[in-house]
Amino acid sequence: MSYDCEIIAVGSELLTPHRLDTNSLFLTAELNRLGFQVRRKHVIGDEPQALTQTIAGCWDRGFLTVVTGGLGPTEDDLTRECAAAALGVELRRDCEQERWLRERFQSRGYAVTQRNLKQADVLSGAELLPNPNGSAPGQWLVSENRKQERRLLVLLPGPPGELKPMVEAELMPRLGRLVPATALVTETLRIAGLAESEVDERSAPVYKRFPRVETTILASLPGEIELYFRASAPTEAEARAQAHEVAALVAAELGNAVYSHNGELLEQIAGHLLLGRGQTLATAESCTGGIIASRMTHCAGASQYYLGGLVTYANSAKRELAGVGEETLERYGAVSGECARELAEGVRQRFHADWGISVTGIAGPSGGSEEKPVGTVYFGLSGSAGVQTWMRQFHGNRERIQRLAAAHALNALRLRLLEETSR
Amino acid sequence: MSYDCEIIAVGSELLTPHRLDTNSLFLTAELNRLGFQVRRKHVIGDEPQALTQTIAGCWDRGFLTVVTGGLGPTEDDLTRECAAAALGVELRRDCEQERWLRERFQSRGYAVTQRNLKQADVLSGAELLPNPNGSAPGQWLVSENRKQERRLLVLLPGPPGELKPMVEAELMPRLGRLVPATALVTETLRIAGLAESEVDERSAPVYKRFPRVETTILASLPGEIELYFRASAPTEAEARAQAHEVAALVAAELGNAVYSHNGELLEQIAGHLLLGRGQTLATAESCTGGIIASRMTHCAGASQYYLGGLVTYANSAKRELAGVGEETLERYGAVSGECARELAEGVRQRFHADWGISVTGIAGPSGGSEEKPVGTVYFGLSGSAGVQTWMRQFHGNRERIQRLAAAHALNALRLRLLEETSR
Repeated sequence: MSYDCEIIAVGSELLTPHRLDTNSLFLTAELNRLGFQVRRKHVIGDEPQALTQTIAGCWDRGFLTVVTGGLGPTEDDLTRECAAAALGVELRRDCEQERWLRERFQSRGYAVTQRNLKQADVLSGAELLPNPNGSAPGQWLVSENRKQERRLLVLLPGPPGELKPMVEAELMPRLGRLVPATALVTETLRIAGLAESEVDERSAPVYKRFPRVETTILASLPGEIELYFRASAPTEAEARAQAHEVAALVAAELGNAVYSHNGELLEQIAGHLLLGRGQTLATAESCTGGIIASRMTHCAGASQYYLGGLVTYANSAKRELAGVGEETLERYGAVSGECARELAEGVRQRFHADWGISVTGIAGPSGGSEEKPVGTVYFGLSGSAGVQTWMRQFHGNRERIQRLAAAHALNALRLRLLEETSR
Repeated sequence: MSYDCEIIAVGSELLTPHRLDTNSLFLTAELNRLGFQVRRKHVIGDEPQALTQTIAGCWDRGFLTVVTGGLGPTEDDLTRECAAAALGVELRRDCEQERWLRERFQSRGYAVTQRNLKQADVLSGAELLPNPNGSAPGQWLVSENRKQERRLLVLLPGPPGELKPMVEAELMPRLGRLVPATALVTETLRIAGLAESEVDERSAPVYKRFPRVETTILASLPGEIELYFRASAPTEAEARAQAHEVAALVAAELGNAVYSHNGELLEQIAGHLLLGRGQTLATAESCTGGIIASRMTHCAGASQYYLGGLVTYANSAKRELAGVGEETLERYGAVSGECARELAEGVRQRFHADWGISVTGIAGPSGGSEEKPVGTVYFGLSGSAGVQTWMRQFHGNRERIQRLAAAHALNALRLRLLEETSR
């Protein structure tokens, strides 16, 4: 059983050469989980006629219409008005929402204007979806179209930081209650340290034996690969069993390159391993410039195992803050195994951490040489038993090299912790 | 003068969570150069009814309809058939194209199948656009719709390696001969430290006086706003002058909240200001956990002005690495103006930098209290003349609070540098 759905992204900026509607990818993934199938996607500018027409067309055709964007307070934001026109319903001002908006503005020291208050306008019969991350609430309306078919319209804010939490906290639970229990299940494997082609070559002989399970390989973040296994069956338990069987067999084939089975991120897994061992980490980053630190602190509760880090971009900082020897820098240079060794050990000691990890390399575009081209990165991993160092050569632009090096360092830490734990 | 255009991307893979239609960005950039304005974009799966309906809708509405994808030889490839149905014209087999296909296959040692030969089917009245990079030719049809309005339909292959050369070599020259020269130019302002609604209220009275320039407001990153000004005119110079006039007037209205006119990022602007003054920066981050450091080092050449930073997540790190007093932490806590002051001054001294900036706060979800709720963030900015500290209250989830605090800190640094420079 699947339900037809169309997604409309609103905003003139999405019709320029500079912007894509990326919200629909996240939405599609979420909707698929409940058996909704996206049939068409539309991008419409801030033009009332086009938007009204498009919403009306969707409302005629398929069960669910999701509109993202155009819920802001500006005159360009016309999604509420156009949805009302398309469905032939009234907009009414919601008193509670108006009070909430006034309080929100007051608490921030802004005055509420009439323009802001239009964010309290609600389609007649719709339910508001609270937005803890912005001033635009979402809307949820179940009704019938002119052919007396049951229809569902959902209005969501455009900024991903507002849309995503609202979809997770408000939309998905409501959809789950509205449609019969779903039987579409996806299992995810996240993989680090292997190329996409290698993952495919090693896993294809396994997953090809299960044509009923849809397998997708995606190079998600630089240095990381995701494998999705999607199964549908009359019951969720059956679907899960089908997806799980393939995922487990592929995971066995890929060994410890698989770092998570449930969507958890590399930094979360490293955090779990540290926490399980009651150990702590400190980081010393040169070319990754804080990416490892910000990934570690992205996880709530990171303070239990992540003590902090140094971003030692300048050589003087490497010397004075991490204790890298003057002679080391002169003799081997900042991009060297020796420097990585002293950085990792220095940061571990200075933070009184159990583990210290260091990254020093050439992210480019300049700074490369014949001997050490752009993309040359040295790593150090220091623990109570000593320091390991090693080198990797990465390819791509500056940002990609930085991200590949950060993922590599986190994965090296994970593998080392696994090894220690299994001893 | 501008011409309305709609773009339809065809392919079921574009309706999964893993793929976006990126061809439309390239197409939009090219079309804008000739004064074509993209009014709507659609993504349709390999479903004949949906595709026929969508092409017919576009043919009714606007001057130019561009369809990408669905020109391959498989059964899923239905663009030719659907276009014929939508316009009510016949498909005829083109002998020359058929011969070309046969030769192409033969020269590669394949046999031609009937399925392959459908790539020689042409809309009656259409001109073929040669494809040197694949087997699917494009099609170009100028005709009239049922309201006797002149209309143009273009079918293009989906693979970017085939589409792009065809657009450049075949489509653009034909369009250039069809319409009088028009240029479309976009100017961008990037803004920090103002809410979207405030930006709109202050700029609307200005940009409303210029209805020929299309103005769009976008909340891009947390804490940052973008304003786009789009103008079309017979020449690029005229269009640029029109867009620039409005952008300059709005920029004057918004004052120093505007940080760039050319798409440069906040961290790039802060870097330019430091570089211009020959000064250096170091950062001490607690709740932002390295986001400011990684934004600063995202820019190539950052080593000229960014010395590095501390991620002092643990209190012991604040004490030992940044020199925050034991008493300060005990008496005021880590989330306090006093701690921010000592962090900023400590990091500046330890890195021998001209400027030190510090952030310490509660990103959540836990750790908040009545007195200092989640989102409470203290900042410190230390220079040779002393340290300023201040507090801000942010709202949202952990990641949003982290990103808002990082943007706020970078913007505070920028404003301070501007002030110093203008002295």
